[in-house]
Amino acid sequence: MKEIAMANKPSIVKGTRDFSPAEMSKRNYIFNTIKEVYALYGYQQIETPSLETLQTLMGKYGEEGDKLLFKVLNSGDFLNKVSDEELQERNVLKLASKICEKGLRYDLTVPFARYVVMHHDEIQFPFKRYQIQPVWRADRPQKGRYREFYQCDADVVGSDSLLNEVELMQIVDEVFTRFGVRVLLKINNRKILTGIAEVIGAADKIVDITVAIDKLDKIGLEGVNQELANAGIDADAIEKLQPIISLQGTNEEKLKTIGEVLKDSEIGLKGVEEVSYILKVLKSVGLHHEIELDLTLARGLNYYTGAIFEVKALDVEIGSITGGGRYDNLTGIFGKPGLSGVGISFGADRIYDVLHALNLYPKETIGGTQLLFINFGDQETAYCLPLVNEARRQGVCTELFPDAVKMKKQMSYANAHEIPYVALAGENEMKENKITLKDMRSGEQKLLSKDDLIPFLLAQQ
Amino acid sequence: MKEIAMANKPSIVKGTRDFSPAEMSKRNYIFNTIKEVYALYGYQQIETPSLETLQTLMGKYGEEGDKLLFKVLNSGDFLNKVSDEELQERNVLKLASKICEKGLRYDLTVPFARYVVMHHDEIQFPFKRYQIQPVWRADRPQKGRYREFYQCDADVVGSDSLLNEVELMQIVDEVFTRFGVRVLLKINNRKILTGIAEVIGAADKIVDITVAIDKLDKIGLEGVNQELANAGIDADAIEKLQPIISLQGTNEEKLKTIGEVLKDSEIGLKGVEEVSYILKVLKSVGLHHEIELDLTLARGLNYYTGAIFEVKALDVEIGSITGGGRYDNLTGIFGKPGLSGVGISFGADRIYDVLHALNLYPKETIGGTQLLFINFGDQETAYCLPLVNEARRQGVCTELFPDAVKMKKQMSYANAHEIPYVALAGENEMKENKITLKDMRSGEQKLLSKDDLIPFLLAQQ
Repeated sequence: MKEIAMANKPSIVKGTRDFSPAEMSKRNYIFNTIKEVYALYGYQQIETPSLETLQTLMGKYGEEGDKLLFKVLNSGDFLNKVSDEELQERNVLKLASKICEKGLRYDLTVPFARYVVMHHDEIQFPFKRYQIQPVWRADRPQKGRYREFYQCDADVVGSDSLLNEVELMQIVDEVFTRFGVRVLLKINNRKILTGIAEVIGAADKIVDITVAIDKLDKIGLEGVNQELANAGIDADAIEKLQPIISLQGTNEEKLKTIGEVLKDSEIGLKGVEEVSYILKVLKSVGLHHEIELDLTLARGLNYYTGAIFEVKALDVEIGSITGGGRYDNLTGIFGKPGLSGVGISFGADRIYDVLHALNLYPKETIGGTQLLFINFGDQETAYCLPLVNEARRQGVCTELFPDAVKMKKQMSYANAHEIPYVALAGENEMKENKITLKDMRSGEQKLLSKDDLIPFLLAQQ
Repeated sequence: MKEIAMANKPSIVKGTRDFSPAEMSKRNYIFNTIKEVYALYGYQQIETPSLETLQTLMGKYGEEGDKLLFKVLNSGDFLNKVSDEELQERNVLKLASKICEKGLRYDLTVPFARYVVMHHDEIQFPFKRYQIQPVWRADRPQKGRYREFYQCDADVVGSDSLLNEVELMQIVDEVFTRFGVRVLLKINNRKILTGIAEVIGAADKIVDITVAIDKLDKIGLEGVNQELANAGIDADAIEKLQPIISLQGTNEEKLKTIGEVLKDSEIGLKGVEEVSYILKVLKSVGLHHEIELDLTLARGLNYYTGAIFEVKALDVEIGSITGGGRYDNLTGIFGKPGLSGVGISFGADRIYDVLHALNLYPKETIGGTQLLFINFGDQETAYCLPLVNEARRQGVCTELFPDAVKMKKQMSYANAHEIPYVALAGENEMKENKITLKDMRSGEQKLLSKDDLIPFLLAQQ
C-alpha cells in the first residue's frame, strides 16, 4: 500500500541519456560513416559482452580506473562468503571484491585483448578488428562527460608494419572528410619522448617535460624553462632541451632538429625514423587534412610504445575528438606476450557535438517516413490499404494514420515527423478511383489516379 | 608479486558471448532486416541507457523478475548508509536495496514506458518506436538462454486502433518472408480468455484452463477434462468448456463457435469482434504466412489486455521466435495512465539459430574485403599504394597486407577471410606497368594494365 502511495515519478540514472528518434538518426549517421570507412579498409566487426569478470577488468586502468569500474552485485546470497568479522571491518574495497565478481566494460581495448587471447587459435593474423559499443565509467557526471558512452575502436594486432599507422591515419582523414569537419591530425612517437628523456638523463620526467613544453604559447620560453627547473630538471638538461622547446617549421625541419638532438639515442632515432616513414608514405598517398608532428602529444604514455595520434577539430573549441597509438604488448596481461598492436578510437559523443555546432548533419538523416495516408474511417482505409502496401513493397516508407481522428491532428503528426507527402482519399477520390497527394513542403496538391501515385513518388526521390 | 604469479588466464562471464566477425555479419543481417522493415512501416528508433534506477526496474517483472535483475554496486563508500545492525542482520534483499541504486535493463518495455512518461511533451502521438538493444537477466545460463541478449521491439502507444495490430502482423509476415523462414502466426485475445472464465464462473482459472487445453494433443479430451477438474473447476463449467476444448476448423468457424459460447459475455464478444476484424483486414491485404487463432496462447497474461501474438517456426523445433500483444496501461506504473499500446518483439538469438539450422544466411553477409594486395616489400608497396587508394575511392573494400612476409602466409590470409581477388605486383608487373589479378575462387590469373584493374573489378560486382 505504501508503495502505491509513493509517487513513482520516473527518473534516469545521472550521467546517462535517452536518445530520441531525431538523435538516433544523427548518431546512426556517425556510426554508419565510421563503420563504412572501417570496412572499406578491411576491418572486421566484433562485439564482446558488456559484463566482464572483475579479474579481467581490475588492475588494467590504474588505481583511479579501478575506482571508476561499475561492479555488479553477485546474484542470490551475495554475503555467503563474507564472515561477520569482514562485515564489521567495513573495508569497502575488500568487501566489494567478495560480493561482486563481474563489472561493466570500461573500454574496448581490454575486452579486445581478452578476445584475442581466448580466440587466438581461430584468428588469422594480422587481425584487423573494429568494435563500436558502449562503455561505462562511474565518473562524476558533467557537461560532455557521461557514465555510459560509445567508443568506436579499430585496431590491428599481430603486425609491426608501419603501414598500419599509415592506414589508420588515412581512415581518420577519410572519416572527417565524409563528415565535412576540418581537422588537424597530430602525430608523435613515444620513442622520441623516451629518447629525449634519455639524452637529458631524466627518464622519469617525460610527462613533466611534455606538459611544460605544451605551455610555450601561454607562458613563453622563460616560463617553460622555469617550470622544467621546478620539476627538478637540471640546468644542463634544460639547455639541451632548448631546440626541442622552440621546435618550429615543417615536419621535415622538426624531424631534422630532433634527429640532431637525439643523435646519441638509439631509441630516439628509431622514433624519428618511424615518424619520417609514416609521414613520407602519407604524403605519397595524399591526405585531405594537414598532419603535424607534435611532441607535446603524450596521451596514453603508460601503454603506447610507438606512434601516438590525436585529432583536433579546427572550427570548434573542444578536446581531442579521436586518438590512438601503438602498444607493443596488449595481450601480455593475459599471458600471451609478443603481439604488437596499433589502434584508433573515434569519440562519437564529441563528434556528435562538433557536427551539431557546425550544422553538418545531412538533411536526410532526419525522419524516415515519406508518405502518410490520412485515416477518414473504415471505408476509406479499405480503399487506401492496397496502396499503402504497394508503396511499402516499392520501398517507400509509408504510414497509415491508425485512428480516424480530426484531420488537423493527423496533419500535425505529418508535420512533426517531417513527412514530405500526405495522401488523402475521401468520398470524391473514391468515386473517381483517385487519390489526392499533398506536398507538405510546398503545400501543393495533386489529384492522381491510384496507379500513378507510387510511380510519381518514386520519381521524386 | 602474488598477483603476477597467478596465471591471469582470461575467462568470459558465464551466459555471455563474444561475437566473431562471421557471427557479427550474420547478426547484423538479422538486425538490419528487422530495422528496414520497421522503418518501412514508419517506426522510429530510440535508445535508452543500459542502467536504470532500481526504482524504475523493481516490482515490474514480478517477484521472480526482481531476483533476476543485475544490480550495480554504488560507487565509493557503499556502506555509508548501512548500520552495523543491518549488516549483522544479513538480510540480502534489504541490504541490496541499500548498497545498490542502479540495475541493468531487464527488458525494453519498462524503459520505454519510462521514456514515454519523461518525454511525453516532446512526443507526437501515436508514437511508433522501435528499439534494438541488449537486456540482462541473472538467469541460470543454459543452452539457448543467455544472461545478455538482444531484444528487437516495436510498439505503438497512444492509439487504440486495431490497424496497429494489423500492421504489426504484416511486419512479422514481411520480416520472416525476407528471412525465407516458414512460420505460423498465432493470434489470441485476452478478452476472449476473460470471457471464457466469466461464462464458466472461474475468473481466476484462466491460466489453468489454457494450460489444460494446450495438452489436448498429448493427453486427449478425457485427460484435459481430468486436469480441469483437478484444477478445481466444477463439472458444470467443464461441460460448458467442451466446444472450446475441441475447437476445430478455420478461424471463421472457430470464431463462430466461441461467439456462441460467449454469447452472454460482453467482454468475450468484444474479443471475438477484435480478432474477427484483425483477421478480416489481414485477409484483405494478404499475408505470405498462415495466421491461426489459438486459444491456448496465454503469454504475458498479467499485462496483455487485448491481442496476443506468437510466431512459431515451421521447419525447426524451437520455442516461439516472436511475440507481443496489447497492453492498456503501460505508463500507468509511472503515473501517466490512459496510454494504450501494442507491440511485438523479435527473438534475435532464436532467429539466429533458426537461420543457421536452415542454412538461410545469404552468402554475401560473410566477409567484406573484396581485394587484397600482396606485400612484396617497400618498392612494390609504393607501386601498389595509389591503386589501393583508388580502389577504396571507388568503394571496393581493399586491403594491402601490412607485412612483407612469405607469399603463402598472405595467400592463406586471403583464403581465411574469403577475399575473392588478390592483386600481385612484382618486378615484371612493375616493369610493364601492370598488375596480376588472381580470382581466388577459380584460381584463374589475369595480367591487367594498372588502369584496367578497378574497372574490371567493378564490372564483376
